[in-house]
Amino acid sequence: MPPVAALGVRVVEEDGTRLRLSAPLSANVNDKGCAFGGSLVSLMTLAGWGLVVSRLHAAGIAADVFVADSQVRYLAPLYADLLAEAEAADPEDWEAMFEGLRGRGRGRIAIEACVPLPEGGPACTMQARFAAIAKR
Amino acid sequence: MPPVAALGVRVVEEDGTRLRLSAPLSANVNDKGCAFGGSLVSLMTLAGWGLVVSRLHAAGIAADVFVADSQVRYLAPLYADLLAEAEAADPEDWEAMFEGLRGRGRGRIAIEACVPLPEGGPACTMQARFAAIAKR
Repeated sequence: MPPVAALGVRVVEEDGTRLRLSAPLSANVNDKGCAFGGSLVSLMTLAGWGLVVSRLHAAGIAADVFVADSQVRYLAPLYADLLAEAEAADPEDWEAMFEGLRGRGRGRIAIEACVPLPEGGPACTMQARFAAIAKR
Repeated sequence: MPPVAALGVRVVEEDGTRLRLSAPLSANVNDKGCAFGGSLVSLMTLAGWGLVVSRLHAAGIAADVFVADSQVRYLAPLYADLLAEAEAADPEDWEAMFEGLRGRGRGRIAIEACVPLPEGGPACTMQARFAAIAKR
């Protein structure tokens, strides 16, 4: 994916419940010397998307995954490399998503993501819903 | 700005009330062959940001402009080049923003943006608030 290459995305950690991605500030800097808002959303969206794809793969479900909607709050400027963390809003939602995909071929899940500041607290937060459609 | 170069952003039209930006699908394509959600948000955010910067410049106000929050709905996949349009949610809000910046050195404005589908209707929509802080 060209936009992922442009962002300079790397997987930092994936433990089955949380996915963490990083991207260098240098490739994502804005006119004020801090992280570009679009890059912050992109990285959080990718972290959420990658988490859903990974969980579906681990569950043995072949599906296309789409972001359906998102709400983002930009709370503080980030003058460091970007790190995005994503996890399910409610871990119990995974099983409901899997059941939906196995039964009706469709499933949804709410994901929460954030980009932390090096000094603590969030630079930005995202609440998003992802939809998956089983491949026939 | 490196991320703007990576997106391949070009200004299509700016008429004082609306800003339109384009970006090629080739630089912003996802694993499914349609536009990457992060690129869609980035282009809509840039269109809103650029509109606010342009209006402040035209009003003779020097200020830094930040996106404060955004809500995005992804409605349909886009298999064509990206075009983002941004305008104020209420055109009368511009004067209030200018007054805030001239008086207190701060102002806010609500911006609406969308990326249309070639066949009509939106691929995605965004409601966002931008904040500006006057340069002293």
